[in-house]
Amino acid sequence: MKKDTIGLPNGRQATREYVVHPGAVVLIALLPNGDVVLERQFRYPIGQVMIEFPAGKLDPGEEPLLCGLRELREETGYSAAEWAYAGPLHIAIAYSTEVIHAYFVRGLTAGERALDEDEFLEVFTAPAQQFLGWCGDGTVTDAKTLSCAIHLSQYLSGQRELSWQSVPRTAGDRV
Amino acid sequence: MKKDTIGLPNGRQATREYVVHPGAVVLIALLPNGDVVLERQFRYPIGQVMIEFPAGKLDPGEEPLLCGLRELREETGYSAAEWAYAGPLHIAIAYSTEVIHAYFVRGLTAGERALDEDEFLEVFTAPAQQFLGWCGDGTVTDAKTLSCAIHLSQYLSGQRELSWQSVPRTAGDRV
Repeated sequence: MKKDTIGLPNGRQATREYVVHPGAVVLIALLPNGDVVLERQFRYPIGQVMIEFPAGKLDPGEEPLLCGLRELREETGYSAAEWAYAGPLHIAIAYSTEVIHAYFVRGLTAGERALDEDEFLEVFTAPAQQFLGWCGDGTVTDAKTLSCAIHLSQYLSGQRELSWQSVPRTAGDRV
Repeated sequence: MKKDTIGLPNGRQATREYVVHPGAVVLIALLPNGDVVLERQFRYPIGQVMIEFPAGKLDPGEEPLLCGLRELREETGYSAAEWAYAGPLHIAIAYSTEVIHAYFVRGLTAGERALDEDEFLEVFTAPAQQFLGWCGDGTVTDAKTLSCAIHLSQYLSGQRELSWQSVPRTAGDRV
């Protein structure tokens, strides 16, 4: 946590206390059959198992796309052949600097997971439309995942054009 | 911030540090002409002016719906005649207990704003479809607002039925 004293437009002073966060990445991972890749993970602050898109924190100096491909492979085993940037999300704008970069990925190849020793999560897949239904009916309540849902919904309905690019060959080598 | 030592499924111990948050409310406020009510506010941790749906933190013991109606009136001047629950959002599940309750409101009557002395924000309206476009093109990046966008999109496309209810008469008296 960091605490700053700031000047307000009315000349008064106020304090702002906030989490300094390195940034993160979230993946909208599309399978050829129309499914998306999801995770179930117990989240201690919430006290619940949450349904989420694969995501992870940036290592110091790490490029967001490479971080996303690394996290996807480590957490789910999938390697991606193509990616498209969905956009940035600011998660808790009142008290955190965190920005999450959202990427679409496709051309997935299943492989071995490589979870951190202290990481526990279950990977599963669901049809994209079923996932979007879960976003409306309260099954999915994680804000980063719900934020990705509007990107996914607009892409599936043809309202959103994506600029697909090949995953750099070096990305695999670096994982 | 709170810091707990917890037991992991593998028998090891780990620490979890997180923000203890009272909870909050966000409003998807629909005008009769199809516009939604939005705010522009400078957010210090992000260092940017953000476009957001009206929102606010729960006072101790405050009922979320009444909090939402109060915040809407204080921040935008609008009073609502009808509401429907959209769902809960968990904002930063790795490091915050925060849950935001999202409500649709309609039947809006304009009135006087009553901002806190140290609150600075600009209210504006935009057609709902334009707002949804902003969620796809990076203009809106606030996760609570993006999370509401999937609810709004599903409602406007007829995929989502809402259970509209009249605002309790006492709600106005309490503001």
